[in-house]
Amino acid sequence: MTHRIALIPGDGIGREVMPSAIRCLNALARRPGLDFALSDFPYSCEYYAQHGAMMPDDGIDQLRAHDAILLGAVGYPGVPDHISLWGLLLPIRREFGQYVNLRPVRLLQGLTSALRDRGPEDINYLVIRENNEGEYSDIGGRLYDGLPEAMAIQANVITRKGSERILDYAFQTAQSRSRQTLAYATKSNGIKHSMPFWDEQVAAMAPRYPDISVEQYHVDILAANLVTHPDWFDVIVGTNLFGDILSDLGPATAGGIGVAPSANINPDPAVPSMFEPVHGSAPDIAGGDIANPIAMIWSVVMMLEDLKEHDAAQDLMGALEAVTAEGRVMTRDLGGQAGTVEFTDRVLAELG
Amino acid sequence: MTHRIALIPGDGIGREVMPSAIRCLNALARRPGLDFALSDFPYSCEYYAQHGAMMPDDGIDQLRAHDAILLGAVGYPGVPDHISLWGLLLPIRREFGQYVNLRPVRLLQGLTSALRDRGPEDINYLVIRENNEGEYSDIGGRLYDGLPEAMAIQANVITRKGSERILDYAFQTAQSRSRQTLAYATKSNGIKHSMPFWDEQVAAMAPRYPDISVEQYHVDILAANLVTHPDWFDVIVGTNLFGDILSDLGPATAGGIGVAPSANINPDPAVPSMFEPVHGSAPDIAGGDIANPIAMIWSVVMMLEDLKEHDAAQDLMGALEAVTAEGRVMTRDLGGQAGTVEFTDRVLAELG
Ligand SMILES: CC(C)[C@H](C(=O)O)[C@@H](O)C(=O)O
Ligand SMILES: CC(C)[C@H](C(=O)O)[C@@H](O)C(=O)O
Repeated sequence: MTHRIALIPGDGIGREVMPSAIRCLNALARRPGLDFALSDFPYSCEYYAQHGAMMPDDGIDQLRAHDAILLGAVGYPGVPDHISLWGLLLPIRREFGQYVNLRPVRLLQGLTSALRDRGPEDINYLVIRENNEGEYSDIGGRLYDGLPEAMAIQANVITRKGSERILDYAFQTAQSRSRQTLAYATKSNGIKHSMPFWDEQVAAMAPRYPDISVEQYHVDILAANLVTHPDWFDVIVGTNLFGDILSDLGPATAGGIGVAPSANINPDPAVPSMFEPVHGSAPDIAGGDIANPIAMIWSVVMMLEDLKEHDAAQDLMGALEAVTAEGRVMTRDLGGQAGTVEFTDRVLAELG
Repeated sequence: MTHRIALIPGDGIGREVMPSAIRCLNALARRPGLDFALSDFPYSCEYYAQHGAMMPDDGIDQLRAHDAILLGAVGYPGVPDHISLWGLLLPIRREFGQYVNLRPVRLLQGLTSALRDRGPEDINYLVIRENNEGEYSDIGGRLYDGLPEAMAIQANVITRKGSERILDYAFQTAQSRSRQTLAYATKSNGIKHSMPFWDEQVAAMAPRYPDISVEQYHVDILAANLVTHPDWFDVIVGTNLFGDILSDLGPATAGGIGVAPSANINPDPAVPSMFEPVHGSAPDIAGGDIANPIAMIWSVVMMLEDLKEHDAAQDLMGALEAVTAEGRVMTRDLGGQAGTVEFTDRVLAELG
């Protein structure tokens, strides 16, 4: 079976970690019955400089003909975010209805947590972020712009349908794990309209999952608890913005942002999902063979899971964690000396 | 000079830490030239149970006749947040125009950070939170409530005036500190209308403070950096919600939420400001003499500063930190055995 993968290296270190991903896929493709057709898409800030857009008009349609999308990172100095992100990353998430953003936070064997006295047994949870609506809505604008009375209004739109589908996914994920708990982030004690509505959607769904114990946390306390009690958490679900914040905070306690993978998922297999490291394009270190490829390789693992290649996923993750556990070859952000390429070499050697 | 202080113990542990505050004030009032007129206000969930409102109709006017308000904590099981908080805490902040929420994050001598290898020299910054508008606006509502098409819309309103006054305060505060830097939280890479407007207000004000180096952080990365690089920060300014999240996260790295003080400030001396611990009413531990009074006593220190009683403020803070530095008498959340009363006794003994 051939999996059609669209590769978008993007900008900065996205272009340095994508080769690590390709090497892993090529290694796995030597196995009988596993094959990948890799297509490269140059959509990036450089593409924008040449063509005046981050991707062509039919970019989304070109990507649609694939089973998965692997993205490096997007963004480069001089190109404003509203072009680089709103012209590529966010449209892919939305036009493909990738409403689930999955962000595992797990301290890999051999890595040191920024938290005192915390090891791999303490930090192992999954942040499930709503990825299509909420605080990131396009609705809003300005009044009296440029005058002293100027104001901006941003609408945060939470729909029942949008909440139900992400909560359903979160409850089901909680069911598939041993602890059978679901924590959800809210701020209904302070934010009057959107957050009580969100709480009601959780409350309405909970009876359908009677085995799951549901825990409500206001986002401020939840952020604090990820530092003081990471071991309390198993599955955490949050709106677009809250999920974004918590899923950057979590990795900061688990080896740093160079390690954190993510999946933007539309559970409908007819539509491609997208896999990408949580880190950005990091122009300051780009080109120096410094970037940590772990986040990217782990994102490939998530892609393989989504493609139902469970053995390949498990083997690649096993190889990755064997390398971190051994600790001999580590990237600089993790206190080692290895570059992107050398670290990837080591993972491939382990993968055999 | 007699300072008129309105005391609102509120609910739960609010009622246990307020006596600690009163004892400190009484001790300081033995000094020549320093006097406090303390008035007790029973506004609380218990008051609500008796009167059907968290405070009387003229509650705000009664409080207005004071130089400062000291609040314990509000909230009790069975009374929904939209009553307990929107009927007392939030109206006080807004009707008195307390648009600055000051939340120092500093690891006191003798306390252990939840962060590995971090000591008092690494964690010492001030979160300045916009306290009146933004994500906490009352504007919004629902459509198709109860139907499958249901949705809620929440407006986040950022005004130029509201931004300018908090940013002005933040820049001036940064000027008064040695590092001359101001970090600000935003999310303009993802949130389209409110956040670019906020960024523009920062950019417009920066030239008026040419000595201050301004650093932009998206809130997700900022949250991560408070864990991985707390030593990078000196003064951080954020909108209402972002300030809320960051100022709970910060204390989690600095001894926990039992230690964190706050000030809700209207810089106009004709209007009372309000001082309160960041922690809530913690009904689960209320009544057991377990609550840590540090957050409350430190909030008293902030009140004394605001009342321009700098010597008294410094002495009380000195006494508090002498006790933590010594480490012999500590509350349970900090690994000790002392109750609320015993810890307060020790601070008072130190204050002399
Ligand atoms: C209780 C809640 C409404 C409040 C807030 O979010 O302002 C609290 O978290 C705080 O930080 O004072
Ligand atoms: C770049 C930005 C728009 C994006 C987001 O907030 O979604 C990023 O932080 C992420 O988490 O993928």
